[in-house]
Amino acid sequence: MFTIRRRAAGRDRDRRVELQTFRVFDTMRADLQRVDERVGDAAALHYPIASQVVGEIVRAGGKRLRPLVLLLAGRAYDYDRDALVTAAAGVELLHTASLVHDDMVDRAALRRGKPTLNSVLSSGAVILIGDYLFAQSAVLAAATQNPRVVAVFAATLADICDGELREIFDAHRLDQTREEYERRIFGKTASLFAGAAEMGAIIARAPEAHTEELRAFGRDIGLAFQIMDDVLDLRAGTGQLGKPAGQDLRQGTVTLPTMLYAAQLPPDSAELALLRAVVAGDASDEASLDAVIAGIRVSGALDDAVAIATSHLERAKARLAIVPDRETRALLGEVADFALTRAS
Amino acid sequence: MFTIRRRAAGRDRDRRVELQTFRVFDTMRADLQRVDERVGDAAALHYPIASQVVGEIVRAGGKRLRPLVLLLAGRAYDYDRDALVTAAAGVELLHTASLVHDDMVDRAALRRGKPTLNSVLSSGAVILIGDYLFAQSAVLAAATQNPRVVAVFAATLADICDGELREIFDAHRLDQTREEYERRIFGKTASLFAGAAEMGAIIARAPEAHTEELRAFGRDIGLAFQIMDDVLDLRAGTGQLGKPAGQDLRQGTVTLPTMLYAAQLPPDSAELALLRAVVAGDASDEASLDAVIAGIRVSGALDDAVAIATSHLERAKARLAIVPDRETRALLGEVADFALTRAS
Repeated sequence: MFTIRRRAAGRDRDRRVELQTFRVFDTMRADLQRVDERVGDAAALHYPIASQVVGEIVRAGGKRLRPLVLLLAGRAYDYDRDALVTAAAGVELLHTASLVHDDMVDRAALRRGKPTLNSVLSSGAVILIGDYLFAQSAVLAAATQNPRVVAVFAATLADICDGELREIFDAHRLDQTREEYERRIFGKTASLFAGAAEMGAIIARAPEAHTEELRAFGRDIGLAFQIMDDVLDLRAGTGQLGKPAGQDLRQGTVTLPTMLYAAQLPPDSAELALLRAVVAGDASDEASLDAVIAGIRVSGALDDAVAIATSHLERAKARLAIVPDRETRALLGEVADFALTRAS
Repeated sequence: MFTIRRRAAGRDRDRRVELQTFRVFDTMRADLQRVDERVGDAAALHYPIASQVVGEIVRAGGKRLRPLVLLLAGRAYDYDRDALVTAAAGVELLHTASLVHDDMVDRAALRRGKPTLNSVLSSGAVILIGDYLFAQSAVLAAATQNPRVVAVFAATLADICDGELREIFDAHRLDQTREEYERRIFGKTASLFAGAAEMGAIIARAPEAHTEELRAFGRDIGLAFQIMDDVLDLRAGTGQLGKPAGQDLRQGTVTLPTMLYAAQLPPDSAELALLRAVVAGDASDEASLDAVIAGIRVSGALDDAVAIATSHLERAKARLAIVPDRETRALLGEVADFALTRAS
């Protein structure tokens, strides 16, 4: 299904995207700044150390893609700025809270190039600070006074936790279906993009069919983002991601490139036996890990995974046909394209 | 202010309460069972080990006091059973989620006589299971479709986290004001009783003045419950609480009896120096701890603390005068009285 021709098209697209300036961040700058202010206020804590570290994580924060999707999903309809900014801040803070707990689960020392909370404070304090940020994100969602928005918000939080629990309980098993993988990355990443788009559309009173299509758009770009993240984890060294390659394999997390690689290997090959041992945690030395990563890199599995991410993005962009405003369509399309630049 | 006469009155009340059968659990049994079913459904997980341990914690669960307060706060007004049961289940699940994280923070091995999650599963899994239960509690709150209920729910969650963070950041300091203590136990315990009463009143469309008074009732009994818990921690051995006495002191948490004891001690006494060292964590041997606990026990500080809890309960019961239904008043009064039986 994902042929060489398709892959080459993906690379062309990569280059084109690289050359392109993303207008969307400029166009939406004023409202994104409003979001940042709301996030900063809600994340304030009374305790100097905690407040400082949380503040740095929030300020260092990536591209604000989730708030961007929420704001843009409302842009073509009844743009109620205050409610949209409030919900967008809730979404960003929910994302931050889940990063704080995620870093504890993964015992990461850096996040967005800054020390993680768990490298500075006791684990008890980090758990509670994460909880506090979850609480404040819920306060923002509640402040929209929109029961449907609140329901989407709560369901999204449950989906995120479900995805992260699956990652733990599905770990160390090489034999997983693509459906299991997709369900996991839906929860972990795509659910919040889907929820963000849906909340934006609901607040802006988009017609029901538009709301559903925008939710599906969010889901598709979220899946693509996570697949690109999984590719990057195997492609990059310490420089690009701020962490060594193969972190997922180290934790026994089986991602799409690994699944595609495993599917290519003969059942009785030494490569498959080694991969199985690394995933199971039975071979945790760096040499074994490096051999598996090298095997994945030369197999073409990374390109195949990028091609699958690209097909999600194409599906996402096709969904935008329903959006009535041409400029909003273009801006949402840019957000989709942005996913691919991460792995270029 | 808290004289011997007052203390003796407290003891008489204790005995009277002990002899009394609590009708309230029988009267509300049917709706509490509905709450339990909703909680059980919402707490279900796909992973057998996690599901089993969470199920046991939920089933072992105490007296369902928080759902009881919520249901009773609605009982004298427009009793919308379905919405009240839904919100009550959300409140109980929120409580359970905070216990799961609390046990991790405290590294407790038993909760309600059952193994805690963190003694069976990895810390990462426990953090995420707690998050999942928070998420599901928010889903239940959202299911009431009542924006005001959702706002109270989210603010309560923030208050709980704030109280627990204060407990960590205020630890190891003997010099604390009563205001600091009260603010901390409001967050940690009273906020959820206050929120439960307020949500019940809102759902049942109680007049605004009644809603405020019921919230204050919840707050007052919550403060009394936590003070009694703090007394119990110093009074009981392993039997009654399922844990050794003095856990709070071991963690450097300064509670009301300790503050009252410290206030009695001469500034240059050996007892005060020892207490200060134990709280600071500079004297963590069992002999020092036992000496401080013995000192608190003979000082009368436990009785003084019980008297303060009793005065909160009296204030709480006085607030019930506003409730129009005589039986509901009596049942809420029983919930207040129940606080004192815990320390008898």
